[in-house]
Amino acid sequence: MIITLTTDFGLKDPFVGVMKGVILGIAPEVRIVDISHDIPSYDILDAAIVVHEASRYFPDGTIHVVVVDPGVGGARRPIAVQAIPLPKGEGGPTASRLEGRVRGTNQLFLAPDNGALSLVIAGAESSFTRHITNTSLFHHPVSQTFHGRDIFAPVAAHLAAGKAFESVGPIVNDVVQHPADQTPTILRVDKFGNLLTNIRHDQLGSGFAIRVGGIEIRRILSNYEEALPGEIFAIEGSSGLIELSMNQGSAALRLNLQRGVEIEVETGTLNP
Amino acid sequence: MIITLTTDFGLKDPFVGVMKGVILGIAPEVRIVDISHDIPSYDILDAAIVVHEASRYFPDGTIHVVVVDPGVGGARRPIAVQAIPLPKGEGGPTASRLEGRVRGTNQLFLAPDNGALSLVIAGAESSFTRHITNTSLFHHPVSQTFHGRDIFAPVAAHLAAGKAFESVGPIVNDVVQHPADQTPTILRVDKFGNLLTNIRHDQLGSGFAIRVGGIEIRRILSNYEEALPGEIFAIEGSSGLIELSMNQGSAALRLNLQRGVEIEVETGTLNP
Amino acid sequence: MIITLTTDFGLKDPFVGVMKGVILGIAPEVRIVDISHDIPSYDILDAAIVVHEASRYFPDGTIHVVVVDPGVGGARRPIAVQAIPLPKGEGGPTASRLEGRVRGTNQLFLAPDNGALSLVIAGAESSFTRHITNTSLFHHPVSQTFHGRDIFAPVAAHLAAGKAFESVGPIVNDVVQHPADQTPTILRVDKFGNLLTNIRHDQLGSGFAIRVGGIEIRRILSNYEEALPGEIFAIEGSSGLIELSMNQGSAALRLNLQRGVEIEVETGTLNP
Repeated sequence: MIITLTTDFGLKDPFVGVMKGVILGIAPEVRIVDISHDIPSYDILDAAIVVHEASRYFPDGTIHVVVVDPGVGGARRPIAVQAIPLPKGEGGPTASRLEGRVRGTNQLFLAPDNGALSLVIAGAESSFTRHITNTSLFHHPVSQTFHGRDIFAPVAAHLAAGKAFESVGPIVNDVVQHPADQTPTILRVDKFGNLLTNIRHDQLGSGFAIRVGGIEIRRILSNYEEALPGEIFAIEGSSGLIELSMNQGSAALRLNLQRGVEIEVETGTLNP
Repeated sequence: MIITLTTDFGLKDPFVGVMKGVILGIAPEVRIVDISHDIPSYDILDAAIVVHEASRYFPDGTIHVVVVDPGVGGARRPIAVQAIPLPKGEGGPTASRLEGRVRGTNQLFLAPDNGALSLVIAGAESSFTRHITNTSLFHHPVSQTFHGRDIFAPVAAHLAAGKAFESVGPIVNDVVQHPADQTPTILRVDKFGNLLTNIRHDQLGSGFAIRVGGIEIRRILSNYEEALPGEIFAIEGSSGLIELSMNQGSAALRLNLQRGVEIEVETGTLNP
Repeated sequence: MIITLTTDFGLKDPFVGVMKGVILGIAPEVRIVDISHDIPSYDILDAAIVVHEASRYFPDGTIHVVVVDPGVGGARRPIAVQAIPLPKGEGGPTASRLEGRVRGTNQLFLAPDNGALSLVIAGAESSFTRHITNTSLFHHPVSQTFHGRDIFAPVAAHLAAGKAFESVGPIVNDVVQHPADQTPTILRVDKFGNLLTNIRHDQLGSGFAIRVGGIEIRRILSNYEEALPGEIFAIEGSSGLIELSMNQGSAALRLNLQRGVEIEVETGTLNP
């Protein structure tokens, strides 16, 4: 059984180690995998993107813990989501491919109910959400400042050790959702300065123009080496969405762009 | 069996990977957990706080390796400490709660004898310290610059693989201890800019004033969401000590405070 | 079975977590060890040094994955290298010590064919290289931007799960090699500001002078504590090569030196 961790805790404090200690005390055999602890502090959208992207590559039954939690100790609920994912590499459900994998084809996600699981839920074939209320699964005493340690880690460990999903608490139907941005936008900047957008390759058709940061892009390269020196180009990123990149350089620095910037997309143009 | 690692090695060099290779060559089944490799270089006090805090949440039998070692290759001894911890969440021993867990209720700590285990030893119900001298447990040749690889990692692995604690070397009674600071002080600044103090909540009583960085604090909040926008407030942190915090902001940056700054505490005041 | 990872992916993006998900989906029992994900972006030489140094301490059979890949999706080949290492701590082969460990004494390395395995191959007793072409071992669809996920991780996992080395593809004999620098040079600066050189201790003889950054060094210390306050000194580093260091300070910052700077070495001098 695998538990993954995605947090904004960084690695200089004992927070992450503490969560792992709590997990291993309950479920000594579990595999713990760090997705990222470098989510920018309190950045729920970044966590939502990272956990959604990473979870697509984990095996069925994986339990993902996401703790980016600006409202810890306040009114927001801790939730657990059971998601039956779409087939990998697909944007939408394909009944025939799903058929053989309905039984057991799911992963669990634990997080504060603050939108961190928005993309997981939106991207799933179907999902069930429960309010985590079963205090017998918690680490006691429960602090007001570290639910990663006192709620999310121990509940994940108990689930990994065999507790039923139903045992965590009652079903809820009013999960906090961050609506996906429909306007073409820069969603995220990665470590290499690639600009991840919410534009799908198939939305562009054969002729198009993408305009942002004072440049215009009219073709999609199929690999970095096709680019001219210093050229900013578009490429289908590993998650199936269009990225704006620069070969061995940072498109973000070069164009001075960051997350949230809107992109102008024109389709049906005559391309070279 | 679990081995944890706490170092100031960072993650850009091969040091941590090398230690893990040495451990897995000796004890292939051991679980290795990183507590932190981002302890500031040579910062023994920070390592002491981090390993003490993290170790409280690990199961009995865990072996903690701490390598922050400004005097590597010099006169300082490598030591191993067997600590019987206080009950979790308690400041002091509680005979009745300890009774059932005396046998096997302990963890091992390996570190240079430079004070890195001060808080572990001070916080333990009882402890036994040995000078690590048994060279048959070392990785050879033993360098003068990397005892993490040549002494601490292999000795920890041999202990995890079943070697008796007594086999590492003779008992010593003159461990280097950094005396805990009695003056109210900022012990540490965490990633979120929270100021961790050495003030225990129960020392404050019902009426008090905490003064530091030009502000005065007269109440303890029970969660971050009670705070006013921009307010610096006190809260009982996850380790039971008072922290000075700011909701979704950095108290450290706002007050321009750092580790070591003394705090004025007045008790017996009439609070609002 | 152990798979190690060395990349320039950093830890803020989902890349590393994704690779681990792919690996665990294929080989659920494998141990994954991070060597470093903080290789400077596109820095093949740094990756070559780090993986060579770290791999020397891992047990036989370990599979090392190195993904520093400026040419991803282009013409460069993915390769797998089977290396029979020199005996640990030795600069060259020692027949008598090798004899007992010929069978199974090897490790596997997967990387783009861009020089990242230069030092591993140069430092091995012998090695065999194969072009990874067996697409049945890949993760599909294979993207043009993330071969860590689509080729290196799944192929490593299949090897860990028992696939034969021969199955990955045909032998090649024209691997890209970065020739080792023969001129005395600063190879690398570590986290503590130590300057790692390519000078072996035994090349210096009994009398020598090392000149770089405006200083001259005429003796090798055996540990940091022998140094005078503020002194820059030479010491045999943990990898057997000479390092220029400063006790509890950064030699790199003090001398304002970085990787690639040449060093003047005079031997046969009369030393104090």
